[in-house]
Amino acid sequence: MSPVHGRPVALDDAFVARLSGVCPIERDPEALTTASRDWWPLALVWDAEGTAQPVAAIVARPLDTAQVADVLRVANDARVPVTVAAGRSGVCGGSVPVHGGVVLDLTALDGIVAVDRESLILDVRAGTFGTPLEEQLRDEYGATLGHFPQSIDISTVGGWLACRGAGQKSTRYGKIEDMVTGIDVVLADGRVVHTGGAPRAAVGPDLTQLFVGSEGTLGVITQARLRLHPAPAAEIRGAWRPPSFAAALDASRRVLQRGATPAVIRLYDGIEAERNFGLDAAPLLLVLDEGDAHLVDAVERIVRGEFAEFARADDALVAQWLEHRNDVSALHRAIDAGLVVDTMEIAAPWAALDALFDNVCAALLAVEGVLAASAHLSHAYTDGGCLYFTFAALPDDTTGRTRERCYTDAWDAAVGATLGAGGALSHHHGIGLNRARYMGAALGDGLAVFQAVKDALDPHAILNPGKLGLRDPFGAPSWP
Amino acid sequence: MSPVHGRPVALDDAFVARLSGVCPIERDPEALTTASRDWWPLALVWDAEGTAQPVAAIVARPLDTAQVADVLRVANDARVPVTVAAGRSGVCGGSVPVHGGVVLDLTALDGIVAVDRESLILDVRAGTFGTPLEEQLRDEYGATLGHFPQSIDISTVGGWLACRGAGQKSTRYGKIEDMVTGIDVVLADGRVVHTGGAPRAAVGPDLTQLFVGSEGTLGVITQARLRLHPAPAAEIRGAWRPPSFAAALDASRRVLQRGATPAVIRLYDGIEAERNFGLDAAPLLLVLDEGDAHLVDAVERIVRGEFAEFARADDALVAQWLEHRNDVSALHRAIDAGLVVDTMEIAAPWAALDALFDNVCAALLAVEGVLAASAHLSHAYTDGGCLYFTFAALPDDTTGRTRERCYTDAWDAAVGATLGAGGALSHHHGIGLNRARYMGAALGDGLAVFQAVKDALDPHAILNPGKLGLRDPFGAPSWP
Repeated sequence: MSPVHGRPVALDDAFVARLSGVCPIERDPEALTTASRDWWPLALVWDAEGTAQPVAAIVARPLDTAQVADVLRVANDARVPVTVAAGRSGVCGGSVPVHGGVVLDLTALDGIVAVDRESLILDVRAGTFGTPLEEQLRDEYGATLGHFPQSIDISTVGGWLACRGAGQKSTRYGKIEDMVTGIDVVLADGRVVHTGGAPRAAVGPDLTQLFVGSEGTLGVITQARLRLHPAPAAEIRGAWRPPSFAAALDASRRVLQRGATPAVIRLYDGIEAERNFGLDAAPLLLVLDEGDAHLVDAVERIVRGEFAEFARADDALVAQWLEHRNDVSALHRAIDAGLVVDTMEIAAPWAALDALFDNVCAALLAVEGVLAASAHLSHAYTDGGCLYFTFAALPDDTTGRTRERCYTDAWDAAVGATLGAGGALSHHHGIGLNRARYMGAALGDGLAVFQAVKDALDPHAILNPGKLGLRDPFGAPSWP
Repeated sequence: MSPVHGRPVALDDAFVARLSGVCPIERDPEALTTASRDWWPLALVWDAEGTAQPVAAIVARPLDTAQVADVLRVANDARVPVTVAAGRSGVCGGSVPVHGGVVLDLTALDGIVAVDRESLILDVRAGTFGTPLEEQLRDEYGATLGHFPQSIDISTVGGWLACRGAGQKSTRYGKIEDMVTGIDVVLADGRVVHTGGAPRAAVGPDLTQLFVGSEGTLGVITQARLRLHPAPAAEIRGAWRPPSFAAALDASRRVLQRGATPAVIRLYDGIEAERNFGLDAAPLLLVLDEGDAHLVDAVERIVRGEFAEFARADDALVAQWLEHRNDVSALHRAIDAGLVVDTMEIAAPWAALDALFDNVCAALLAVEGVLAASAHLSHAYTDGGCLYFTFAALPDDTTGRTRERCYTDAWDAAVGATLGAGGALSHHHGIGLNRARYMGAALGDGLAVFQAVKDALDPHAILNPGKLGLRDPFGAPSWP
């Protein structure tokens, strides 16, 4: 029995025939397995252990929004689960088809539809990958989207929107939900809805934000309208060694609250300064800003003023970070070494961050088998920031304690410490499968509102069932 | 017969008794009439003409969220319409109880609940008025919300959120939907839901944004969490006379796209420059920024650079604007003189704005009886801005053409020109009653999504029926 499984839905030949009449489909076992995985670390552990996991019965690869609509119509009529996916770079198991069924692969919905050079507005298909998109915007339009997630090589516009992603320069450019002004989204019954489009509106609720973050449970985003910016004219970099994490948090808070928005403001604790940069084990503060020269200059003055009492470090540390920022090879090495490793990103008000840092690290280290817990401030706002924790655990084989047990205990401990302090369950990785069990605690009666919207828009619950703590008529997934 | 009416709901004595056990209620005819009006200009005309209009049967004045919940429970059980209101400063008839029933007056839910001075986060009750709130924030906390709508003296936090309001300094501080990070909202069945709370989250859809802008049709917002800013340390002002509206739009666009966010950037056409400022009839461009001295200085450099070819005007024009910006006495004078006057605020991408300016003015002036049409750019973003049109009409008595006819024809003409050019139906005044008939054209199948959410959260449609183009089981209102 697989550790994560639902009730695999039987697909009859007539369904397969109907689907194959809609768009290209694939049923090769290897392709099905690949299409049924994302970067959820526990699943990587299971893979390394050879443990069976859920697999889709069919991968559908529609070529346009109309084919997406037809796939959903066919699946909705047959009550077959549809798990939408593209880059599958998620780290919470959101793309795992727990009941089998159809994986809807959007990577063929690729490329820029239009750029309004005057208004700096991009219309782009959901399956477009980050790196070629950013390159084309720079080369052909002298523009940037400003969205640079660690996953940029393997993640897509639609995935960013579905999970409310954040890039490494979000303090200047915003998270993806701040960049989007409209979407095309296909409902479970195949209706195509176009939302938003103008810079701002007061025309009822913001329907764009209803689908952004719904992780494929309310509809399938097939196209998006996003704000662009001129490619930056100037850049500044700086590095400091603050005397304590708390003092650096406080100075970073003052920078943001004065109105400065340095693209990057990252504060590493001593453990990460040592591990990631080869420095002594004291905090490290990196700043990078980019944009108009006058504004970048103003930000530099504010940053230098607020950090004046901190020791300067070599600004080349920023280049070192830039060079290695998207390297996740250590994760695979750790898994191969028998460890279980994961990250947890948590947003909270400034007033809660310092205690959260201490308490989450302490909660993680109190879990049997956890060897290390560390964090950095990865994103900052006027009212708070995101702490990005990393933990590693190595269970003692002699006790029979599994990596899976260490993993779930670590998550339970860290989430308990977070929610108790008023932190958000996730800042930008999303919920997927891994965090689904915390949704009631995180949202309270808000989950009932989400469920009511789900029931209204997807009455047969075919869209990504088993995720986000929503009711699952196919049978609740077995994990954890 | 009243020009706006539904099917007044009969309230029996048992209902009145139940409601009076929940919270203070009022049934005095004069109080009922007052509580049933907002600042919708057509209703002001009807008032001046002595034309009957819908009146609530009861005003309920709950003192806290629990009483709001009890009022809604009682009304939902009895299927009695509830129209939520507070400052009643809206200009679209959103607070008019078209079927009578209960007006839920939130003005007793007043005052600051908490200020997190470190995180600069405000928790405030929905019925709090703008001016005393801003004064208390300045005096006691050295902070500002940054929200300065023209209605600030007579509008409340809950009203801003319900209608997605914008203040005059929104280019730096954002619209109200950019400021809010969480709300308490009461559903039709009395459940109290708390949304958001953290600076950002990736925990399913943004439920806060589902209720913000719903104008009392999905739930009743009773409390909000809003971001604050330090009271500004520096300020700059400037005035220019650009050679054309188009040239000034283009320069304003470049300012915003370089990343500058001057709190105020207002561009008046020649008609408004003459009428509002006593200048010759050529465009006028006003800029005001405030905040950290370094950032304000950077903004000034960018603005002066982009406006370098425009003639400078007296900076005292900014002070003149500040002094008169909230004066709406001309509206009443115009109505007394037999005119019908209204404003329409429309958001669109930069590439569409210049043609929209021409086309909407032309569409208005083509309507029989319309004497004047003018506009200013009132709010700006990287991707576009808001044009704020004003029209005045005086029907020819000898033709039997009414002010109401002139009014509806003018709106139909202006909205047609807007939607055809990709503009949003409203930027910050909202929909209410006046714009309800355009919701299908504006949202397409998005209206079906909104309707599905409405049906799920308010199955008996007791919340503000007759508004926003939603189905109305009490009978569609008769207007227009």
